[in-house]
Amino acid sequence: MFSLTSFGESHGPAVGGVVDGMPAGVKIDMEQLHHEMARRRPGQGDGISSSRGEADEVEILSGIMNGVTLGTPIGFIVRNHDQRPEDYDHLKNVYRPSHADFTYQAKYGIRDWRGGGRASARETVARVVAGVLAKQALSQVGITIKAQAQPVDCEPMLGDTTGGVVNCIISGVEPGVGEPVFGRLSAQLAEAMMSIPAAKGFEIGLGFDFVNHRGSEVLDGWVMKDGKISTTTNFSGGIQGGISNGNDICLNVAFKPVATLMQPVDGIDSDGNKVTIEPRGRHDSCVVPRAVPVVEAMAAIVVLDNVLMARASRL
Amino acid sequence: MFSLTSFGESHGPAVGGVVDGMPAGVKIDMEQLHHEMARRRPGQGDGISSSRGEADEVEILSGIMNGVTLGTPIGFIVRNHDQRPEDYDHLKNVYRPSHADFTYQAKYGIRDWRGGGRASARETVARVVAGVLAKQALSQVGITIKAQAQPVDCEPMLGDTTGGVVNCIISGVEPGVGEPVFGRLSAQLAEAMMSIPAAKGFEIGLGFDFVNHRGSEVLDGWVMKDGKISTTTNFSGGIQGGISNGNDICLNVAFKPVATLMQPVDGIDSDGNKVTIEPRGRHDSCVVPRAVPVVEAMAAIVVLDNVLMARASRL
Amino acid sequence: MFSLTSFGESHGPAVGGVVDGMPAGVKIDMEQLHHEMARRRPGQGDGISSSRGEADEVEILSGIMNGVTLGTPIGFIVRNHDQRPEDYDHLKNVYRPSHADFTYQAKYGIRDWRGGGRASARETVARVVAGVLAKQALSQVGITIKAQAQPVDCEPMLGDTTGGVVNCIISGVEPGVGEPVFGRLSAQLAEAMMSIPAAKGFEIGLGFDFVNHRGSEVLDGWVMKDGKISTTTNFSGGIQGGISNGNDICLNVAFKPVATLMQPVDGIDSDGNKVTIEPRGRHDSCVVPRAVPVVEAMAAIVVLDNVLMARASRL
Amino acid sequence: MFSLTSFGESHGPAVGGVVDGMPAGVKIDMEQLHHEMARRRPGQGDGISSSRGEADEVEILSGIMNGVTLGTPIGFIVRNHDQRPEDYDHLKNVYRPSHADFTYQAKYGIRDWRGGGRASARETVARVVAGVLAKQALSQVGITIKAQAQPVDCEPMLGDTTGGVVNCIISGVEPGVGEPVFGRLSAQLAEAMMSIPAAKGFEIGLGFDFVNHRGSEVLDGWVMKDGKISTTTNFSGGIQGGISNGNDICLNVAFKPVATLMQPVDGIDSDGNKVTIEPRGRHDSCVVPRAVPVVEAMAAIVVLDNVLMARASRL
Repeated sequence: MFSLTSFGESHGPAVGGVVDGMPAGVKIDMEQLHHEMARRRPGQGDGISSSRGEADEVEILSGIMNGVTLGTPIGFIVRNHDQRPEDYDHLKNVYRPSHADFTYQAKYGIRDWRGGGRASARETVARVVAGVLAKQALSQVGITIKAQAQPVDCEPMLGDTTGGVVNCIISGVEPGVGEPVFGRLSAQLAEAMMSIPAAKGFEIGLGFDFVNHRGSEVLDGWVMKDGKISTTTNFSGGIQGGISNGNDICLNVAFKPVATLMQPVDGIDSDGNKVTIEPRGRHDSCVVPRAVPVVEAMAAIVVLDNVLMARASRL
Repeated sequence: MFSLTSFGESHGPAVGGVVDGMPAGVKIDMEQLHHEMARRRPGQGDGISSSRGEADEVEILSGIMNGVTLGTPIGFIVRNHDQRPEDYDHLKNVYRPSHADFTYQAKYGIRDWRGGGRASARETVARVVAGVLAKQALSQVGITIKAQAQPVDCEPMLGDTTGGVVNCIISGVEPGVGEPVFGRLSAQLAEAMMSIPAAKGFEIGLGFDFVNHRGSEVLDGWVMKDGKISTTTNFSGGIQGGISNGNDICLNVAFKPVATLMQPVDGIDSDGNKVTIEPRGRHDSCVVPRAVPVVEAMAAIVVLDNVLMARASRL
Repeated sequence: MFSLTSFGESHGPAVGGVVDGMPAGVKIDMEQLHHEMARRRPGQGDGISSSRGEADEVEILSGIMNGVTLGTPIGFIVRNHDQRPEDYDHLKNVYRPSHADFTYQAKYGIRDWRGGGRASARETVARVVAGVLAKQALSQVGITIKAQAQPVDCEPMLGDTTGGVVNCIISGVEPGVGEPVFGRLSAQLAEAMMSIPAAKGFEIGLGFDFVNHRGSEVLDGWVMKDGKISTTTNFSGGIQGGISNGNDICLNVAFKPVATLMQPVDGIDSDGNKVTIEPRGRHDSCVVPRAVPVVEAMAAIVVLDNVLMARASRL
Repeated sequence: MFSLTSFGESHGPAVGGVVDGMPAGVKIDMEQLHHEMARRRPGQGDGISSSRGEADEVEILSGIMNGVTLGTPIGFIVRNHDQRPEDYDHLKNVYRPSHADFTYQAKYGIRDWRGGGRASARETVARVVAGVLAKQALSQVGITIKAQAQPVDCEPMLGDTTGGVVNCIISGVEPGVGEPVFGRLSAQLAEAMMSIPAAKGFEIGLGFDFVNHRGSEVLDGWVMKDGKISTTTNFSGGIQGGISNGNDICLNVAFKPVATLMQPVDGIDSDGNKVTIEPRGRHDSCVVPRAVPVVEAMAAIVVLDNVLMARASRL
């Protein structure tokens, strides 16, 4: 129902997208949009920004009139101002380690090598825009989303990088939202989070730690609270059988360390020759702080979609 | 392209499904189908079967003629022979802890309370059937899938249960399979795995352990192997930027302990009264061994779908 | 939201399907199901039945408990009792004129030649079952669907056949149902109708006759009726800009004459040799009367889907 | 596989879209793009342009590098230069006859009243852009698409309008493209054409004229031509059982007369009061010539999608 179609290469003219299924009649707070865009900008982690001085001005092209949503598709673009394609000429035929250069080439037979092209994390701009819209719709039905990075050592190491875990809590989802079997709410959230660049793991509730417990230790018992059936604990993370139970939905996402190091690394060219790639520009040593608003955005997109779909499941 | 639509309540007449997009001309080995169905049956873990003496005979209703696929939809059913609905009358208005009774009721306003109804793990029968079909198609292009349970203490505890982790290795996928951005192969696998009953975590490659390493320690360097570009290590788990790089795709799935204990547990009825649920019948104390063929099946479904889609991405 | 996945070859074990998205809590009238199945059976047009003595007993396998829908997928099968595959051995390598034998072979490289296989109109059994379910849900919100064949000469000609037009009126759809632009309600209805075997034309409202009128002659003026805005005429056929306006939705579907004649016709074999195909068994000379319940079924499926989706478009 | 997501209100900042699934490595001829955009512009029919002096410059924002497609999403926008929203203030609370004003209001509870907003035919700009891309991919596999308006009296009547029929021929599609049953190629084409503004009828091959013939008169007999199995006639319009047979695919689309007349017409306001709407600006009296490139575009989108999907149906 609610969905984002996105486009854009890192060093092309613009990134952007189309949001379909935004409910009509929602007043949009552009301040929050700017705020979330700022949270996503490089340099959030350690005071060291990446080389791009991104302006990230969002231009809304449709679907909103006088600040209120029309229910029609919301098209938007963010121009890529700081394009220096020539900075990347040395990477034209080179596959960097743990980047998507080789796999894009294998899939398409062609690729935009400038700054990662379509594989750049710059595409998350579109996710954040859609996420802000979703959040504002969700706030009308009392749903809030809050992510934060788990403490991680983000000290600027001598040219090295770290990964980390982001946890996210979705509050206010009433019982009965989600789908059982294939489209489980937990499965949809997993797909959404694992679609974020550098995401390598996902868990809900106790997640992998369930393995360390007996069943009797991790049952979520029932209790009446304010006249509603609720649980005494929340090991399940707010979802049972793929459907929300009214408690907070709690999830974690693991991100690998940024693959672009500020030290020489070995690559390979398309002919199979080893090449040494020298560091250029400045890059975040830890991407996790910037991932926080993206995790929130993806959560908001999935939850709004399911909240809307829940309305279509009964006559 | 390749997809499964499934149906069936645990104690209704049958479970089954429809497989769409099965390539034409594949010879089906019914022996393997029976073998995989046997792997999924209760009692794989500890010699203690659940109460159902499932026969699990798969009846293929369409899409295969003289043992060869036609390319048309493959409909199939597995009858539920051991139906004793009266065994479940005491659960009619009761929500068991950490089960989907309450959430189904919240979503639909009605539910089949017999043996978990649609929320029963019995629906995985359909996944295994579709998975066998997918595996047989994949074997024609040299792709194999092998899952196994990580060692876990499955000793029959006095009425208690355990969870565990299943790891899965997908071999033989050529570089260039998958989608970037939203439909990443890793994200599709995450959704597929998290749709399995009791799945609570997913990771690919190093997964959550990436957090414990610097970027410089976990780069997958390039090397020429048999005239092909390959990696010296496989921290990424065979996928970069959402697209396969030709290496083994390695993933883990965490399952929570079975929520049905062989000891009295507290539930709540629909009026909010506490009730004690006495154990009945026999149930697996550890579901993980049975989950192994289901993990393989879901992997096969996702990978075949992506292998077929990859053929549609270039003219 | 509401969808049908179907399967089945004409002379395989069974045809059937899975209905997803059926609203929960709808009481199902099995009598109506049997009645509609009877309307679809061969021999409705002219007292001359086709060669198949179809029993068409629908077996519901899931999704309905004690006669009430659960909201979960409804699986169903109809066995093919009258299978005489040997009757079709002479067609194994033959392409009949204006049938799908050649195109299936071109697409799949293999086909079930017995009675048309998957291309047989027997697959419409599944549509009628899904349509009855949809109708019963729609009747709860006051929507009714009524199709009829336009008068056509269905006299049994000496081995020849006729086509015809079915018109269909959908009443009771409130204003605001449907999608603009790509998923227009009119476009969805067109796709649904053109997916029926032998359908070759579709029109809504005045349809092709709009060409014979000036704009000033065919504007649907507005009027207040029972306190509601309504139109004085209904040239548009109840849909404007892809969205219902509250009036009857009126459409026509054109069907070509049945391609199976009761006289010798020329075919070609897979080697390119001309062959003469002698008539066998008995076949309907006019398929249009049997198409009437199928048109109603497809209309019901599309309209219910859109009625449910309409609930998901506003918060 | 190949799809267009579009956005844009007639008098908002821009219209545009995202094309997903464009095959990589296709050289794009921007001249053809400009040419097709010019064909779609107002004033093609009778020398009388509509009031908008549209520039219609297409800005490609992604997915194409150095004139060659990357396989990634192609985002594009066309700015709406000639915005005079105040021209439409008198229509703010008025529903024009046979327009979508009322139905949009019913669906969304809000609408952009300026020049039809989202319901304006201006959205077809996005279709034409996507269609040109599709055509250029199709030309690489020898498929051409040619539509033309059937002769119709487009003389500028005293403030009145006419409709008409566009026929379209798709040549070069090899046998075996399309889907049987629900996604028939004919059904997909019907949906695509009926999604064009003002489209009210669709037919393929003989279409509605099939009703006037006996089956024996309209069988497409088989013949060997250049070593290939082909048909002697093409009553079926190139599609049998939903799948291409290698012949030209021939279809017709009926368009109703433009609903905006250059004479006073009666409307109704949101309170139910009758209002007279005076004509303003200039509008096409016959939309059919402008619809020709849109019909071609929709045909190209559907056919390319199916050509690509056909590659995914066999291993």
